[in-house]
Amino acid sequence: MAIKLYGSLLSTATNRVRAVLAEKDIEYEFITIDMATGEHKKPEFLSRNPFGQVPAFEDGDLKMFESRAITQYIAHAYPNKGNDLIFEDPKKMAIVAVWMEVESQKYEPIASKLVWELLLIPMYGKTPDEAIVKEYEAKMEELLVVYESRLSESKYLGGDCFTLVDLHHLPTLKCLMGTRVKKLFDARPKVSAWAAEIQSRPAWIKAITA
Amino acid sequence: MAIKLYGSLLSTATNRVRAVLAEKDIEYEFITIDMATGEHKKPEFLSRNPFGQVPAFEDGDLKMFESRAITQYIAHAYPNKGNDLIFEDPKKMAIVAVWMEVESQKYEPIASKLVWELLLIPMYGKTPDEAIVKEYEAKMEELLVVYESRLSESKYLGGDCFTLVDLHHLPTLKCLMGTRVKKLFDARPKVSAWAAEIQSRPAWIKAITA
Repeated sequence: MAIKLYGSLLSTATNRVRAVLAEKDIEYEFITIDMATGEHKKPEFLSRNPFGQVPAFEDGDLKMFESRAITQYIAHAYPNKGNDLIFEDPKKMAIVAVWMEVESQKYEPIASKLVWELLLIPMYGKTPDEAIVKEYEAKMEELLVVYESRLSESKYLGGDCFTLVDLHHLPTLKCLMGTRVKKLFDARPKVSAWAAEIQSRPAWIKAITA
Repeated sequence: MAIKLYGSLLSTATNRVRAVLAEKDIEYEFITIDMATGEHKKPEFLSRNPFGQVPAFEDGDLKMFESRAITQYIAHAYPNKGNDLIFEDPKKMAIVAVWMEVESQKYEPIASKLVWELLLIPMYGKTPDEAIVKEYEAKMEELLVVYESRLSESKYLGGDCFTLVDLHHLPTLKCLMGTRVKKLFDARPKVSAWAAEIQSRPAWIKAITA
């Protein structure tokens, strides 16, 4: 098969790419990288991603890493497959680009820190650092104030339609919804409606259950 | 004038956009936001960027923030002006997208921490935290090992030509070159040649001296 995704079902970055492949209804071969045995740090995988992080991606002779670069490539390269995730109009796409940066520069660092403290540290049998959790919950609240305002003027973060912006949030959002951080989303009507809707998309459900 | 840039000449993110406007040979109005008096946190500027950070940008009725989204918009929207900063070929552009993510996710957090410790903290009359500086110098070295390898197979990070990838590095790179971190770049022949060449581009010199 021409398209190959190397990653782990436990990796939010891998699931970001799986979500796009499901939305675009694209068949692909999934190759599990066993992170427990350090497969992502071995020479064969390092030749796919010199930083030793999942996922890596192949489309014929094209080899890529970095999940958000991969999702953008797929959304642009397969315009006639599945659901549109980008706009053709450059000004509409400019707004999508703004909010994609917000996700990657602002949402992700907060979300991934909270996922680490509230989900991963307890999995290792340790106790989350309450001061860090409170600090990052406060940062998330500040961010969600902006999201609530944005979603009051626009159905989705990038515009009137579901786009890559919303999709990029899904993997960490799903993790956060299993923690106490959910109440910060629930407290805001536009944010909570948006979070519920994007998580109920058939392609996302397919991506995380396939 | 249709194009307006709101920012500060002391802001690396503002200078990222100025660099693109210079490369594309685009005239624009520059509106200084006085960060010393907190102008970026006042309602008028918050209506341009809800996060209260420079720069903000206007092209007619389009309003944007987030420097990397703005640079991408300009590079795509003005294909016939100045120097090309992107590729038309989707597979070449996919590689540019990979290394743009590397800049924003990996280089920038390390570079901006070092700029903070080694340039800004001393400006406030304080002493950098040597442990933090050493930690981030080690991270920068790890990153530059990957860059040296990448620049051994490709003249620029995104491919055979100077693109947005290289440009996005320039504002923090310029700051780092005035610190002890310069020796980490100088120690690597491909990295130091690349850093010297991209900093000598006429458009960059124009952007930071205009």
